[in-house]
Amino acid sequence: MKKLASLALALSVTAMAFPAAAQFAKPEDAIKYRQSALFVMQQNFSRVAAMASGKAPFDAKVAAESAAVAEFTGKLPWVAFGDGTDKGRDNRAKPEVWTDKAKFNDYANKMQVEMAKFSAAAKTGNLDNIKATMAGVGGSCKTCHDAFRKD
Amino acid sequence: MKKLASLALALSVTAMAFPAAAQFAKPEDAIKYRQSALFVMQQNFSRVAAMASGKAPFDAKVAAESAAVAEFTGKLPWVAFGDGTDKGRDNRAKPEVWTDKAKFNDYANKMQVEMAKFSAAAKTGNLDNIKATMAGVGGSCKTCHDAFRKD
Repeated sequence: MKKLASLALALSVTAMAFPAAAQFAKPEDAIKYRQSALFVMQQNFSRVAAMASGKAPFDAKVAAESAAVAEFTGKLPWVAFGDGTDKGRDNRAKPEVWTDKAKFNDYANKMQVEMAKFSAAAKTGNLDNIKATMAGVGGSCKTCHDAFRKD
Repeated sequence: MKKLASLALALSVTAMAFPAAAQFAKPEDAIKYRQSALFVMQQNFSRVAAMASGKAPFDAKVAAESAAVAEFTGKLPWVAFGDGTDKGRDNRAKPEVWTDKAKFNDYANKMQVEMAKFSAAAKTGNLDNIKATMAGVGGSCKTCHDAFRKD
């Protein structure tokens, strides 16, 4: 049985391949969708981050599988930031998401690139390799949140 | 650039490979995690279901990619039904999730098998192939909801 972890390499070349034509029935669905995908991503990333910081014991298999899920789900939120999805459900997206789309998309893409490096590192089973990629992911999250997410 | 859709075959052999050891900091995180994964899955499945029923125009690429995401995210919720996650956040899981785990896991696995067939069908780009798998997925969702989800 193939492991989710083994998908990391395949996934690493799929960045930004998600259908731009994906539609949502209502703005609230789009908002809930991006929040859901980001939450699943964050939970998986944080599980590995706890290992990298020594707060949790290192489990190479769990780390690789969690990183693969974080990478995959990190590709999903972006189609759900379409026009007209600023309202409809509580959310913290700043207006700049829609007024500075080029920058937002650039930040979103950079996060996916860092997440691919992180997932590839986790696939090696080596904690030091994983640690070397944490700041890249964390930084790309923070850069985007600082610019595009309300406190 | 490889498409998400091309992952369908690889994903189809990963059913039940997600780490059973995945941990959540709080029961509410586990509940939100499974709800989030199921919502992302449902949105992607429904997008293709709308095409299959003629409510939306058929777009083979979107269908294949959406089905691949539905298949992947359909593997994720189950680790988040651990003991002690019945409370902590509004949710509709019946007590039977924990008192009849064998049946619940069986239903969860059956859904993933049907979802893999659905995703494989979507990868063919043929709408009739997709239509032939819809009842299997829908039925497996309903069977589990009827037994394990409150109205």
